[in-house]
Parts: sequence; structure tokens; C-alpha cells
Amino acid sequence: MAEPRAVRVLLERARTTIDRRSLFKGSDSVVVAVSGGPDSLALLHVLHRLAPRYALELHVAHFDHRLRDGSAEDAAFVARIAATLGVPATVRSADSTERPRGLSPEEAARERRYAFLEEVADATGATRIATGHTLDDQAETVLMRVVAGTGIRGLGGIPPKRDRIVRPLIDARRAETEAFCLALRLDPRRDPTNADPAFLRNAIRHELVPALEGGFNVRAVEALARLADLARDDDALLADLASAALTPEMGPDGARFDVARLLDLHPALQRRVVRLAAPLDAEHVERVLALARTGTSGDAIDLPSRLNARVEYDSLLIGRAPSPPVPATPVALLVSDRRRGPTAGGRAWGTRRGSRHPSSFDGRGRGTASVRSGCGTARSWATTSPTRKCLDWNGAGPRSSRPATRSSGWPATASTTGTR
Amino acid sequence: MAEPRAVRVLLERARTTIDRRSLFKGSDSVVVAVSGGPDSLALLHVLHRLAPRYALELHVAHFDHRLRDGSAEDAAFVARIAATLGVPATVRSADSTERPRGLSPEEAARERRYAFLEEVADATGATRIATGHTLDDQAETVLMRVVAGTGIRGLGGIPPKRDRIVRPLIDARRAETEAFCLALRLDPRRDPTNADPAFLRNAIRHELVPALEGGFNVRAVEALARLADLARDDDALLADLASAALTPEMGPDGARFDVARLLDLHPALQRRVVRLAAPLDAEHVERVLALARTGTSGDAIDLPSRLNARVEYDSLLIGRAPSPPVPATPVALLVSDRRRGPTAGGRAWGTRRGSRHPSSFDGRGRGTASVRSGCGTARSWATTSPTRKCLDWNGAGPRSSRPATRSSGWPATASTTGTR
Repeated sequence: MAEPRAVRVLLERARTTIDRRSLFKGSDSVVVAVSGGPDSLALLHVLHRLAPRYALELHVAHFDHRLRDGSAEDAAFVARIAATLGVPATVRSADSTERPRGLSPEEAARERRYAFLEEVADATGATRIATGHTLDDQAETVLMRVVAGTGIRGLGGIPPKRDRIVRPLIDARRAETEAFCLALRLDPRRDPTNADPAFLRNAIRHELVPALEGGFNVRAVEALARLADLARDDDALLADLASAALTPEMGPDGARFDVARLLDLHPALQRRVVRLAAPLDAEHVERVLALARTGTSGDAIDLPSRLNARVEYDSLLIGRAPSPPVPATPVALLVSDRRRGPTAGGRAWGTRRGSRHPSSFDGRGRGTASVRSGCGTARSWATTSPTRKCLDWNGAGPRSSRPATRSSGWPATASTTGTR
Repeated sequence: MAEPRAVRVLLERARTTIDRRSLFKGSDSVVVAVSGGPDSLALLHVLHRLAPRYALELHVAHFDHRLRDGSAEDAAFVARIAATLGVPATVRSADSTERPRGLSPEEAARERRYAFLEEVADATGATRIATGHTLDDQAETVLMRVVAGTGIRGLGGIPPKRDRIVRPLIDARRAETEAFCLALRLDPRRDPTNADPAFLRNAIRHELVPALEGGFNVRAVEALARLADLARDDDALLADLASAALTPEMGPDGARFDVARLLDLHPALQRRVVRLAAPLDAEHVERVLALARTGTSGDAIDLPSRLNARVEYDSLLIGRAPSPPVPATPVALLVSDRRRGPTAGGRAWGTRRGSRHPSSFDGRGRGTASVRSGCGTARSWATTSPTRKCLDWNGAGPRSSRPATRSSGWPATASTTGTR
């Protein structure tokens, strides 16, 4: 029987990606991350069919975050699929929904999932971990970064290959994985949180991307993904040049640079040399460089993650802020209601503390901040109260730390104080 | 009398930009491009006030494109303002509305305007030409390029300084120039075509940017402009490295590279080395490199501007396509109605010829193509007919070559053939 067209299309796409991007080295043992959704289900079937060609040995891994009803059924579904294909599987349930301080629920879930995948890979001696990210995920990531504020590094988006993680579907459209599942009568699980427009990614996926494709460029997703490829190559070369040009001297105080040597470099390298000392975002890097250019010995600025940068004679030092800790300062958080427009937004007052993520307090919605004000995902922020509880932003009131994935709505007014 | 706040704000912004970006070298003679709109009017007044500080000698230049009613009044207005400030002015009217084949009306107008500014600068011995581009123009340009498809070079957007052209308002918001004009009771002229959403830039300005600022990031414009600054620095360094690494041998046939040496470079440099031979867009550069990687002697591909790339033994040659000219091949143009969504779009069949802008036929809406399908500015395209008339896309029927700046609307159905 002839293979359905949708099946052939996705197989061909994956083959091209695997070859062009050298995802496998041959005879790889691959942990396949399967959530049960269309992308990862298609990934598993694609790799299962390509296994003979690339001499792959597969192992399914599924992590049940236990964050919503139906997640146990997803786990059972994935275990069943793996058994049907004759692929061994490891399914694990989260033993707690607590999350590391300072991380949003999505970030915490992501960290746990990857930690689990690495564990399974270690346990099975796997040389690769495959995830089902698609061209659409790539375009959405690039767009999120462009809109939120990024440099060239952020534009690189989702790397098709990083350490042992590979993404064989990164050049395939999401619609192609859906068509693949339909053609093979697979019945993927649907994560209802993927439709909730309160999440920034979902809003970009369901509103911004369709608007761009319909109104500006029918091939916008491909254009964004190509930009990611170009940016990744450019950034990789520049990062190499930067480390070769000037490496900070690492000491107990932090990373130390000779100011004159730093400023002697091309601006494109100066920025990357600063990043060798700390994973700063584009805006903080500029502030550090402005300090290097104009500061005199003793001048200092605060940075995220309880870091600071200071000038000491001929050196620039990036390290832990010296005690006493940064005093609490009120900062305005500008909040807008994505669904009702910015007029429905309010103004909330948080309090900056010596936080791992002070960017969560400056109203810019960047980096790993747990509050992304003005971008539709503001949900919780850490307060200065000694109990350090989280204030659930999504209408659930203070001190709730349960992620509000399917809340009853967005607050119409957002005025409150963050010091309770 | 104290200076109004809006005036102080814009002056301070311009001063910071001029100093930080080294726009003047001291005692410059500056041609100021003044359309009469708020941005350029504010620019003229700002430079007039800063003239003593930077020892500037100003000269106003205005080009009347004669493309719409009221343009003569704009010219008279600018001449009057210049006289009031005691600044000499050169005002010129277009002597024809014909435009070079293959350029859109906007591109043709832009080319003429800059040619005029350079002429005035030469005639007055000016060392600088100042234009009124703002942070908003910058963000719109970056967004247009991101959506249309670009690499890092395109992300650089509008250079704050290029040759003798400088943009002192490039870090100021458009609203700040409006507030400046209001505070000084200047009464800028309004170009009605700036409101026409049939132009891609206007649609981005009036729809996409407000949506991003309201729904995703209140500081999206600043984020986009910062990305432009970062991308410009990165691209400048990489372009320098590329020319140092490998320069094509220029001969009568075109630019010639040693394939092995080209492929030996980092991918980020390979792309830029190819661009030393021809100003290709990101997608065509990839095609040239794919040819270099996999082609054998005699293999060739067509490129825009009647160029082609071919492999000749150990060399890659980029030059004029050899005769006979590229045969006509039908290509699908996917057209979508920006206002009614893609469902209202049709499918038009153009015919590829040995065109200066074959990208106008491949439905990708990129580069300098005169047709930008799927992005709201498709207006005309050259046909294969021996008369080489343009087909006016905006509802005015074939053989009209008048730019349809204020048309009655977008075609609801777009099916037609391009060979009349």
C-alpha cells in the first residue's frame, strides 16, 4: 500500500533536517521526549520509521507534571503507544508541584522536564535526546524574543542541535505533524493550556502569527526560522571571537576585566566579552559597558541575580553584590490587559529586593522574570514579605502559589501593592 | 521664559544621539531634508537651536515629488519656514513622474529624493545631510524586515550615520517630535498617504506596532530599535572579517571564488563573502552556497538582476547570465487581501522573464521587487509583453502606470494572468 502523502512529506522533511544539520552521528541511542501531543507523537513515529536508516535505538520518555486534570491519561496513552511500537519507555510523575523560587510555572516545568530527559539519557546510555519542536515553535520563539527585546543571540531561537539534544522536526510546519497524525489515524492528546491566550506564547501562536501570515507575508514563519538560523551562525562566530579576544580573570570577587582592553575591542565583541562574565540581557550589557566607558573607580551598578558591576582602578569587576544587600525600592509595574487592551491595565507597585530576577520588577517583561508585565503573562511575583509567598496575579489573590493555568480571566483592574 | 518641557526633551535626545553616535565632526555644513511633516520640521528647529553648540551651518532642502495634490503648498510652506529661521533653502520640483523600470513608486521617490539631497550637498559643499527619521521609523523598518524575511544585515534597519547622511532624531519617539511641534506652535504639513493602510509601512505603523505595544510589550519600539543597533554592530564586524578572509576575483565574467576556500570559511562569513559579489537577499545567498556545496562543473542557478551563479571546475562564478536570456516560466503569485484576510486572496499567474527583479514573481514579497504579494503592497508588475507596460494591481486595470496611492480599495479577487 502506498504511503499517504502527509507521511511521506514529514519523513522527507525530517530526513533532510537530520542530514543537513548532522543531528545523528550513526548508531545513536535516542531518548524521544513524548508528551502525547501531535508534534511529539509524529516525532516518535517518524524516528521509528527512520530508525533502520540511521541505525537508531529508541527510548520513549514522558514526564507527567501533574499540573492539570487528564495528565495521568496522557502518561498512560504515551506508555501504550510506546508498547505498540515496541519501544521501551520511562514515564515519571512529578512528586511535587513546588517550584524553584523566582521561576514561572512554565519555566519550572521546562527545567524539570529537561532534567528528567537528561536523567533518562544517562540511565539508558543515550547519545541523543530528541524533542518535537517544529518550525512554528521556532518562529514563535523568535517573534517572542523580537517583541520582548533581544540581541542577535536571542534571535537564534531554539537550537536544532545543542549538546545531545536534537530537534528532527525543526524544519517542519506544525500543520505537517497534524496531517501526519491524521493520515496514520494517530489520535494525539491535546493540552488545553495550549489554547489559553493568557500565555504569551499562545497569544503569539493564535493571534500574532496568523495576523502576520494573513496580512503581511504568507511565508512569515519560514522567514522567522531562517533568521534564527542566520543569527545562530553569526552569534556562534562572534562568541568564539570574543572568548579568543579577552577572557575575564575569575576570582573570589567575580570576573575581572582590564577596562582599556575591553574598550579597545569592537563593540560587537565588547558585549559578548561582558556576557562571558554573567548571562546578562542586552540592556544590562549596555549598562555595564556604559559604566566601563564613563565610570571612575568606585562607581557601581546593580545587575540581576544579585550581581553588580563596579569599576576598581583599571578593572571592571562583575560579581556578587557586596553586603549590605540592595535596599528595597518601590518600582512601578505597568500592567496591561492583553484581551481588553492597555486601557484596562492598571499599575501595580512591587518592591525590588535582592532578587534573583529583579527584571520582574522593572516593567520590561524580559529574561526569566516571573512577572512579565505588559505582555499578557504577568501572573505572580515574589514579595518582600518575610514569608516570601507569591502573589498570584491571575485573579486568585495573594499567597496562592498554584499556577493559574486556566483562570477565570484577567483582572480588569490591577492596582495593588506588592508588599503584603 | 522657560522652554516648554517637550522642547527640552527633544533637544536633549538629539544632543545625546549626536554625541553618542558622533554624528558631527565639528563646524559642519548640513543639508537638512525637510518634507514639512512633524519629524523633519522638528529636526530643522532642533538643529537650528543646536547650531551654535556644534558650530553647524544649515541649508534646507525640499523635493516636491508632484505625486499628490497639495505638494506645491508643502514646498511653499517649507520655503517660508526656512526664510523665517534665516536658513537658505533649495526647493525642487520633479520634472516628471516617470520612474525607473522595476522600482515601486515609493522606491523611485526615495531614490530621487536622496539623489537630490546629494546634489544639494555637493552644490553647497555640505559635509552632512540630516534626515528626520525617528525611533518609530527604525522600529517599523526592523519589523518590516523581520516579517518580510531578512538576515542580520537587514535587521540593522536605518543607519544613524552612513557616509555623510546623519539622523539626529533616530533615538527620539515620533510622539516627541509631535509634542515638540505642538509646544512651539509649529503647524506641520500632513501627508495623507501616511494614513493609507494599503502601504505596508502604514499598516505596520498603524496596526502592527500598536498591537505589539498594547498587547505584548509596552516598550516594543525601543526593543526593536535596540536590536537594530546590536545587529548593525555585529554585521559590520562580520562584513569586515569576510572581506579580509576572501575577496572575489573580479573579471569580465563577474566575480569568481575558489570553491574550496569559500567552503572552508565559517558559514557566517561564507554568506557575506558571497554578498561581496552581488547584493543578494538571504534566500538567494543560501541557494548560491548550496550550489557551491553540491554542484559540479557546469551547474548553474538564476539569480535576481539578470545574474546567475555557476560552478566552473574549482571556481564559483557570479555574474551576468550568459545569453540566450532566461526562458519565460510561469510562476504562481500568491496574493492575499490584507484587510479581508487571506481567504479573500486569489492566485495570479505572472511570467518570469530575465527581470531585474524576479523575486517579484515568486510570491515571497522580498527585496526591491515591485510586487510584494501577500503583504499588502502588491501594486504592479512588469509583464512579458513586448510593450513592457505595467499592470496596475490596485484595481485600475492593466497598462496603467500611474501609482495608485489612494486607490478605491484592494481587489477582492485577484485571479488574472500576467501575460497581457
